[in-house]
Amino acid sequence: MITASPVREHPHLRVNLETAAALVEPSVRAAVDRLPDQEKAIAGYQFGWWDREGVPTPGNGGKGIRPALVLLSTAAARAAIEQAIGAAVSIELVHNFSLLHDDIMDGDIKRRSRPSAWLVYGKKAALLTGDALLVLAFDVLAESSGHRSVAAIQLLTQTLLELAEGQSMDLAFEGRDDVEILECLTMAGRKTASLTSYACAIGPCIAGVDPVTIRHLQGFGYHLGLAFQLMDDVIGIWGDEERAGKPVGSDLAARKKTLPVVAALTSTGSARDRLIDLYNRATPFSADDVRSAALLVEQLGGRAWAEAEMQRQVGIAVSHLRDASLEPAMADELATLVQRIIRRDR
Amino acid sequence: MITASPVREHPHLRVNLETAAALVEPSVRAAVDRLPDQEKAIAGYQFGWWDREGVPTPGNGGKGIRPALVLLSTAAARAAIEQAIGAAVSIELVHNFSLLHDDIMDGDIKRRSRPSAWLVYGKKAALLTGDALLVLAFDVLAESSGHRSVAAIQLLTQTLLELAEGQSMDLAFEGRDDVEILECLTMAGRKTASLTSYACAIGPCIAGVDPVTIRHLQGFGYHLGLAFQLMDDVIGIWGDEERAGKPVGSDLAARKKTLPVVAALTSTGSARDRLIDLYNRATPFSADDVRSAALLVEQLGGRAWAEAEMQRQVGIAVSHLRDASLEPAMADELATLVQRIIRRDR
Repeated sequence: MITASPVREHPHLRVNLETAAALVEPSVRAAVDRLPDQEKAIAGYQFGWWDREGVPTPGNGGKGIRPALVLLSTAAARAAIEQAIGAAVSIELVHNFSLLHDDIMDGDIKRRSRPSAWLVYGKKAALLTGDALLVLAFDVLAESSGHRSVAAIQLLTQTLLELAEGQSMDLAFEGRDDVEILECLTMAGRKTASLTSYACAIGPCIAGVDPVTIRHLQGFGYHLGLAFQLMDDVIGIWGDEERAGKPVGSDLAARKKTLPVVAALTSTGSARDRLIDLYNRATPFSADDVRSAALLVEQLGGRAWAEAEMQRQVGIAVSHLRDASLEPAMADELATLVQRIIRRDR
Repeated sequence: MITASPVREHPHLRVNLETAAALVEPSVRAAVDRLPDQEKAIAGYQFGWWDREGVPTPGNGGKGIRPALVLLSTAAARAAIEQAIGAAVSIELVHNFSLLHDDIMDGDIKRRSRPSAWLVYGKKAALLTGDALLVLAFDVLAESSGHRSVAAIQLLTQTLLELAEGQSMDLAFEGRDDVEILECLTMAGRKTASLTSYACAIGPCIAGVDPVTIRHLQGFGYHLGLAFQLMDDVIGIWGDEERAGKPVGSDLAARKKTLPVVAALTSTGSARDRLIDLYNRATPFSADDVRSAALLVEQLGGRAWAEAEMQRQVGIAVSHLRDASLEPAMADELATLVQRIIRRDR
């Protein structure tokens, strides 16, 4: 079993958890810099680089997990990370495209502890900026993937079509009381894990790494993504606002069918009926309603299931690391990243 | 001067105005068929293939001008049209992505004489389907462009970034009374003509046609696109609903800064002040207000300017056809297409 360990010295690879995001950020900024002024302003706000007045906000960006996954998995597959920088940029652009459009669609008003971009700049401009970030992602990926560009582009398109399918499923679940836990995991797999799976495969794909190693890295990324989503759902119900980056209980208030809720709804008993009644109520939730819903989901075993399932997904992810023939220090870094993600450190 | 003439026999090329769209449609349908059910339903409605119940609606699709431009320009550059089918599919997908998102952003309720997709399926699902069509466009283009895929993908990304910039400009114009006619033409160039320019360049790009010919075809497509936009704006104010595919006057009612309106606002005199007052009024337009606005724009010379400018743009477009070294019968077809577009035939 691979466990977290101190980073070993590997001078040739020159990437670790602490440095990965910083290696990529200048190229992300250079890409966003090519956008027209208004879209650039919105994109930089979305990335957490500046506030609505354009004043830089150091340290307010994302956790850089996805670009770290790209570079670490590339290095783990013994490929040069230089050729994966564009791929790491593409995933940051795609991730933020998807956040921009998600927040518009869901009407979410907070993102990373700040007002969502659409609330600050309007829905039209935010939607347009999302489109532009997606286009930029393809541009950067095509430019940086050389003679493997077709495979790289199609890995991205496949990922994005899965993502869209996951979002469609999510939308369809809203009106249903009978969502099964397995279809909900499939939905989360498409909506979230497809992107972390892409993150772990795209660098090795561009570098021409053997297919078996790529499949293990994809599997690692997929199950890591599911663990991440389970953690996100748990924090969204029982965490604190600083850790969640959004008001705790907002998923409940929006009656979202998150994984712990769906797990709770597969239980039986009177608490289940009370939860369904609450979820189907036409009027907005009060703070008390949110607390009641959280308590019902916990009583129905939704929290225990989610935490156990998260550990199970982490186990599968780590087994992929173990079974692939990876550079050991980098595999350790990836395992450390897993632990960090499920603890939700910065 | 190249003018409209009967189609000559060119058995080797096997494409003309009547057959181009039909050559491409099966591949567009095959691409859309890969989407999840809900997105496929929305996409097919958007394309005009079926109604909201999924009942086929033959002959209700678009005019197929863009795929015709792709195949005709490829044949005009003496390249095999087979290798441009994927490119023609990509532009149909991109065009409909942009219509889906535009209608959401503008709140337009009619498209091709039917309720807009977002009105039928909801904004979330329509936005998501737009995203999926954009992703499909990249997928099809990457797959079909072989070893010129990087150039092809970057021609598309460049086009889409221009499109987004045009939409940003359009958005910024909404709050201004002092939009200059030149910046408005630039905006229309980015928002509309970039796509027709792409249509005329992408097939030859994939086929490896010489850069001078490609530049002429791009120029042809660009000025054709501007002529098309001017015609669209004129029909939107003074045409009839059947021809426009949307309620006549809806652009005026939405206080859009279309080209004839901007031209009118550059005039002087009391009619200009009345038009500005009308446009800045907070209350919705009545049918009388729409008629008054149309009359004011016409009195201020907006219509005459737009019609003259359209002829000028057509002249530049046709001069590019003349100056490029093209296959004569196909150049004639392109010239016929120009005449057809500005007459707005099917």
